[in-house]
Amino acid sequence: MERMPTVDDVALAASVSRQTVSNVINSPEIVRESTRLRVQEVIDRLGYRPHASARRLRTRTSSTIGLRLDPLRDGISGVVLDRFVHKLAEQADERGLRVMIFTANGPEDELAHIRRLRDGSDIDAFILIATFHGDPRISWLVDNDVPFVSFGRPWGSTIDDPQHRWVDVDGRAGVRDTVTHLRASGAQRVAYIGWPSPSGTGDERRAGWEEACGFDAADRARYQVVTVDGVDEGADSARRLMAVDAPPDAIVCASDSLALGARLALDAAGFLDTPVVGFDNTPVSAAMGLSSIDQPLDEVVAAALHLLFGPDGGIVRPNPKRNEEPTNRLLVPRLVERRSSHRALGETTGA
Amino acid sequence: MERMPTVDDVALAASVSRQTVSNVINSPEIVRESTRLRVQEVIDRLGYRPHASARRLRTRTSSTIGLRLDPLRDGISGVVLDRFVHKLAEQADERGLRVMIFTANGPEDELAHIRRLRDGSDIDAFILIATFHGDPRISWLVDNDVPFVSFGRPWGSTIDDPQHRWVDVDGRAGVRDTVTHLRASGAQRVAYIGWPSPSGTGDERRAGWEEACGFDAADRARYQVVTVDGVDEGADSARRLMAVDAPPDAIVCASDSLALGARLALDAAGFLDTPVVGFDNTPVSAAMGLSSIDQPLDEVVAAALHLLFGPDGGIVRPNPKRNEEPTNRLLVPRLVERRSSHRALGETTGA
Repeated sequence: MERMPTVDDVALAASVSRQTVSNVINSPEIVRESTRLRVQEVIDRLGYRPHASARRLRTRTSSTIGLRLDPLRDGISGVVLDRFVHKLAEQADERGLRVMIFTANGPEDELAHIRRLRDGSDIDAFILIATFHGDPRISWLVDNDVPFVSFGRPWGSTIDDPQHRWVDVDGRAGVRDTVTHLRASGAQRVAYIGWPSPSGTGDERRAGWEEACGFDAADRARYQVVTVDGVDEGADSARRLMAVDAPPDAIVCASDSLALGARLALDAAGFLDTPVVGFDNTPVSAAMGLSSIDQPLDEVVAAALHLLFGPDGGIVRPNPKRNEEPTNRLLVPRLVERRSSHRALGETTGA
Repeated sequence: MERMPTVDDVALAASVSRQTVSNVINSPEIVRESTRLRVQEVIDRLGYRPHASARRLRTRTSSTIGLRLDPLRDGISGVVLDRFVHKLAEQADERGLRVMIFTANGPEDELAHIRRLRDGSDIDAFILIATFHGDPRISWLVDNDVPFVSFGRPWGSTIDDPQHRWVDVDGRAGVRDTVTHLRASGAQRVAYIGWPSPSGTGDERRAGWEEACGFDAADRARYQVVTVDGVDEGADSARRLMAVDAPPDAIVCASDSLALGARLALDAAGFLDTPVVGFDNTPVSAAMGLSSIDQPLDEVVAAALHLLFGPDGGIVRPNPKRNEEPTNRLLVPRLVERRSSHRALGETTGA
């Protein structure tokens, strides 16, 4: 096993004291520039790395972001957060940051984890996912001055509190733009299948449909089905919609699970040309050729890291007194249009 | 912000010296039992936590497992590794271990990451995924005495090298058991749709079908389609199989993507009663009511952590001289049988 170079090796090779090597690493501003360059050159050449725990103890930083991984969900849409984790790992890596993941049984347990990781200086900042009304994590993190950003807006509380930095995807705009696009493409009656209220995410998506559908109150009730998430539920809802007088000629759904069910039910009933649009652009929608509204996770992660670490990598602490920089970002998703491959599967059957 | 208790607070409250507090934490075996209990009680009551970086510097351990997260894959089957990450985070948490994730562009880049994390004492052990023939990570980790376990057997090299601890799922047994079960349930001609050779995983799964299908060489060629992965590819393959004389009355596939395509093609052609079985039991197979062979990821993770950390939590270093404990585990997957909900979607259509 190759021996790792030590601080003594660097000091010897650069003809300086151990203390100077330490200063170059920890307090470069107090070292003469020519010396600093010489020592740094030796550090690079030898591949010397100060012991990370020692460095962290001195600097009290860990270059590590903590993220709670939700318990595994069986649904098709659960993969969105997994995609978020992948993107986060990639972009954190580009910034020289690491990602530590942990699991928790609910917000109180997550808070216990956050507290332990904070106490141990293991984590510089946290990313919260799945924020909700009265979220106890938010108030604790703010009160304890722990840097964090949430993927999800502060439902039910002050949306512009600079202490709570957040990034979210504007589901309302995504659905509104999609409905507008479908109507511009010739659809007369765009129906909606969505989740029961109250649901922060679900209510926003439904509001986007209501704003763009062009229906009066009676037709908004007629062309809308409220259901829990699921493929079977999407199929049942689509059948109900197609049974009304003047059935819809396009359906937008709050999720890809609902859209998949709706698509299969419409195909089985012969409505092959009725567009169905899902939400989240999951692998299954891509595999099945379903149109879907895509959350721009690359941008979400970039915005979250920018809010936390700024352009230059140092932790940015929110300053409630001076709110010159925006402390949140609401990103607009985009429609990914596909022609159903399922339909093609049925059409070209040669068996 | 509530002040964190310090070692002085503990020493004062327990009427002992700072050194004694430190000994209780770092060398409890040298402290008198009654003193140890009294100090520990104060530590617990005050919620004192020694600074993690300081503790790690002393012990040179991090209680952290490193895992490379593969770049995001668009396929339906990519989620298996995400499920693995969730399970790992959960079981690591139960053992007081943390999981650090990172990404890499290929094995050489991963090795550079591993080297950096090892040099910084950031990671106690690594879990490798997606092992392959001539994997350079394996030899480096063995040569450098870095503890690791792979999810995936050492393809193409000595499978029983005690230096390479591994856990894998026996795809051959999974497919063999499934084909045997289908034949026992009345299927006369069980066909197979699988990936091109060479593919460690794919070749094993195909071998399981070959062992149990009961066909002679000519029929093994007739009732088998080789294709790259994908829903469309599964549909095309199923159509080819159903076009032969005496078409198959059951189809087993190397993946859920292939199985989903095959199921849709069979449904479109009216073969509603022909069972189709996929592999990986992904969310889409559950949502669509497809039968699938499930990888026992809970057991995989438990076995991996057991091989690395043993029953009592300390890193177990493989000892090539004394190989009393097994250093690998091959786990058998199980068939999850479902009746296609897709079929039900078509049948009950009321539109």
